[in-house]
Formats: sequence, structure tokens, C-alpha cells
Amino acid sequence: MDNKQQQLYLGIDGGGSKCKAVILNKDMQILGEGIAGAANPFHSLEKAQSSIVAAAELALENANLDKHLVPELIAGIGLAGVNLPKYFKLMNAWQHPFKSMHLATDLHIACLGAHNGEDGAIMITGTGSCGYVSVNGDSLIIGGHGFPHGDICSGAWLGFQAVEKVLLAYDGIIQPTLLSEKVFKQLNCSDSNTLVETIAGHGATYYGRLAISVFDAADAGDEVAKNIITEGCDYFVAVFNKLKAKGSVKLSLIGGLKPRLIEWLPTEIVDNITVAENPPEVGAVLFAMNEENKK
Amino acid sequence: MDNKQQQLYLGIDGGGSKCKAVILNKDMQILGEGIAGAANPFHSLEKAQSSIVAAAELALENANLDKHLVPELIAGIGLAGVNLPKYFKLMNAWQHPFKSMHLATDLHIACLGAHNGEDGAIMITGTGSCGYVSVNGDSLIIGGHGFPHGDICSGAWLGFQAVEKVLLAYDGIIQPTLLSEKVFKQLNCSDSNTLVETIAGHGATYYGRLAISVFDAADAGDEVAKNIITEGCDYFVAVFNKLKAKGSVKLSLIGGLKPRLIEWLPTEIVDNITVAENPPEVGAVLFAMNEENKK
Repeated sequence: MDNKQQQLYLGIDGGGSKCKAVILNKDMQILGEGIAGAANPFHSLEKAQSSIVAAAELALENANLDKHLVPELIAGIGLAGVNLPKYFKLMNAWQHPFKSMHLATDLHIACLGAHNGEDGAIMITGTGSCGYVSVNGDSLIIGGHGFPHGDICSGAWLGFQAVEKVLLAYDGIIQPTLLSEKVFKQLNCSDSNTLVETIAGHGATYYGRLAISVFDAADAGDEVAKNIITEGCDYFVAVFNKLKAKGSVKLSLIGGLKPRLIEWLPTEIVDNITVAENPPEVGAVLFAMNEENKK
Repeated sequence: MDNKQQQLYLGIDGGGSKCKAVILNKDMQILGEGIAGAANPFHSLEKAQSSIVAAAELALENANLDKHLVPELIAGIGLAGVNLPKYFKLMNAWQHPFKSMHLATDLHIACLGAHNGEDGAIMITGTGSCGYVSVNGDSLIIGGHGFPHGDICSGAWLGFQAVEKVLLAYDGIIQPTLLSEKVFKQLNCSDSNTLVETIAGHGATYYGRLAISVFDAADAGDEVAKNIITEGCDYFVAVFNKLKAKGSVKLSLIGGLKPRLIEWLPTEIVDNITVAENPPEVGAVLFAMNEENKK
């Protein structure tokens, strides 16, 4: 097979911590993969663009292809941050090095990937959280407003709630429980002063790591931890109902928290969950192919 | 009266946004006042020290005294941040320019000031919140852990809760109310995307300004706003009970939110509130005088 003779596709899934690239041929075969740095234009437009190119070159290399093939690629690019119109416009105005570029939100490509290009809904629960549904060309985002003011039921949200409760318990406002013990241990702290010093200035990723203490405590029967998770799950039920109202009940749950959270979600959600068919970066290629067909 | 013939005292109340200084004579008469920049050693030790000296010089100038009198001053210095032992030690090791320096927390000098040097309790509700009681030389801090993980019922906390609720209402997870309207108007935003862009990266002071929208909406009967304030007040009741258990029910409510919050606090707290007799910076002088007497 001579790849120079057939069209190659680049799929990009870019977010706040990393950028995944995949090279596919027209038969949707994965030829190579690459991972580069952060690619959220909301944080840095230049960094996002350089990460996309770097990931694309790594994926070509991984496919044993010449990285000078970049100008031959039809690129489907899904990015966090481009749900904000300002950053969509800025990113779309990029003098990109590809044959063509089709830009979408990270949510849209994740949804396309999960449902193999068909209509459906996704709920993301990793460091952040978000609900998304795409039906008949119409889409809806629920949540995903970021940390600490949004992203209920995300890892960062669960960790943040835990810190609030641990500080209340330390002050004797609520009863200390196993959750306090686990959080103090995980952060290697012994009192509220050192805890406050330790967490100072940290963001979503840091708090997200504490989610494991919340789930571990809840699994051991800790009421404070269970209440935090239940509040998060109640939110997810409300989000799911909003997504369902749009016309789709085919749902994929995506993100690092899935294996822990799924045990706590009510059956009304769990029964609707289907396994994602492809990763988001493959969804980005499905998006690009679809957009090219419209030409 | 020749001030060179009598001992002069410097009182300092330093926090995250400004540093207040007052010059008193031995009869507790205020001779001059000065205000300089931030003085929280947790944020910057050097800045805190330079702000203290700048405020002291301004207060001497305001008292029509020579700023070269700085080395003659007995200084009582109350600072935010020195409740953390690390920053107390760092600040106390300062090669200060005063005749002597007596360092305490901002809470301790506020409490001494409010109760004119006697035992008592304070609850602070401004941008941040905190409870403090000092009885028989023993003291207790409840809360004050900072934004966004602590400081329940502070202006920043109220504003942050409002943003969370406004985003939930925008997504249709809860019913939008007058609070949404007021917050969108105050931030000059029309949808959740611009709201999220607008609030991005802001801290406690920014969120604290939104507290006015919460109180205004609550006064107009908005249930979401009322629930936020009620949750804050429930916390303050719990804090008050912890302070009372230490042996004092003489309470001062201090901070910019006092006039709005006092209308929502239950009588069990309001009936115990006494008006603060002196501001914190005068409390700092009371502290210094007391420490000098121990010599």
C-alpha cells in the first residue's frame, strides 16, 4: 500500500493538558498516533497551534510516514475552548499547514467518535465534566463551565467538595469522618493550616486527584463522601434528562472517573450507557470526512 | 505637648489589599493615620514589610510628626497570614526599624480593638469570613481558610455561590430567577459563555462584589438568593456556637457585609452583638502596650 497514492486524514483531540493526533487512511485504518502538549486556545492560541503540528508530525513519524506530508493531510481538529465563539474564530483564522482544516469542539468530536458518526449523547467525567448531545445536526452543551464554579460531578469538583468538608470537620462544624483522614493522608498534612498552605494556588488537575479519596471513603461507607457523590450524581441525572429531551438516549460516559462513578449512578442512566466505539481523535476524522463530503 | 517627650505607639492592621497605620500617644489619643498597600506576608514578605513602613511614615506625616521618629515607635502589628506558623516566624524575624515590635494575627488585634482589650469574640464578614474568640489568654480561630475552599458566608462565598446557581439556571438545571438577571446585569453578560469568560481568573475580591446582587435579590424575595444567604447564616450560627463554647458571648460583627448580613442572622446571634469599640489598628496598640507591660 502506497500511502502517497491515497488521501490521509489527521484527527486531533486537543485539551488543556495534551493534544492527541491520529493518522487515518480513507478506510478509517489507524496508521499512526502522536501526543504533544496542551492545545486549548483559551489558554494560549500559539501553544495550541504548535501542539497540533507537533502531534501531527509525531503521528506521521509513528506511521513511518514522512513528516513533510503535513500539507497533504485533511485535518479534523476538535479542541477544548472553541465552544467560546471568540476562540473558535481565532482558531479558525489560523494559517494552518494542512490541505484543509475542519474545526469542532472537543465535545462534538468525542460524541461523533463514541457513536461512530451517528447521533447521540455523551457525558464527560474526568478532571472536568460536561454533557453534550448531537441530534439531526443540532447540538446542546450542558455544563462544562470549568473549575471551580462549574463542572459538578467532575474529579476536580469532588476533590474540592472534599476539601471544603475536611476544613469544616477540622473546625468542628461537622463531624470528622474517614474522608478527613484520607484527604489529610493523601496531601501529607496534619492540620488545617498545612492543608490550606498545601492546596493554595492549585487548580482543577490537583483537586481532581483527590476524587480517589472521596470514592475510597464512600466505598467504605463514609456518609460525608457518599453525600458528595450523591449530589454529583443528582446533577448528572438532571443533565441526562436535559440531553434526553433533545431527542437521544444513546449515551456514552467518557473520562477517567467512569469506572468509579458508574457504580454510583442510578440505573436510569446506567441502562442507557453504550461503550464508546472510537476515541475522540477518530471522531475528529469522521467530522472532517463529513465536512469534505459537503463540499 | 511635645511628642518627643512621650512614648508614641504605632498600630498596624495589614491584610491582602491594604495596610492601615495609626499613631497613638500613651493616653490612647489618635494623632495620625496612614494607609499603604498590601501587607499579607503569605503573599509577599517584602511587600508586607515595605507597606508597614510606608503606612507608618504616612501616619507620622498625618500627625505632623517627623518620619524620622520611626525608630522611636513601639509597634503593635496585626497581620493576615501570620496565623500560619511559618509566616509568623518569618515576619517576627524581620530586622524592623521600630523601637520594638509586637506581632499578632489580624484577628487578635481586631478582637482586642472591638472589646477594648477585654475578652470577647468577633465574626468577620467582608470579602472573607472568620470567627475568633480570645478568653483568658487562650484563643480559637474558626474558619478563615480562604477563597474558594473556605470563608463560608463571606462576600466572596456568596458571590461564588451565586455564579454556580446562575450557570445551573442558564443550563436549565434549576429555574432561572431574579438572581440570574442581577448577576448577568452586574457582570454585563448575556449568556453563560461570556459569563465564564468574564469571571475567568478572578479571585475573592471580584466575587465579593457580587454579594450585593445576592442580597438585593434576596430582599426582593428571590428563593435561590435566600437559600444561599440562609446556608451562610446556618454556618455562622455553627461558628458562633463554637466561639461561645470557649467562654465568651460578647460578640462583634466586623466587615463590609455587616449591614446587609445582620438582617438575615437569627436573633440568637444578633442579640449578642455589641458595637466594636475601636478599629483593629487601635487594637494593635492595645496589644503592644499589654506586651510591653509584661517586660
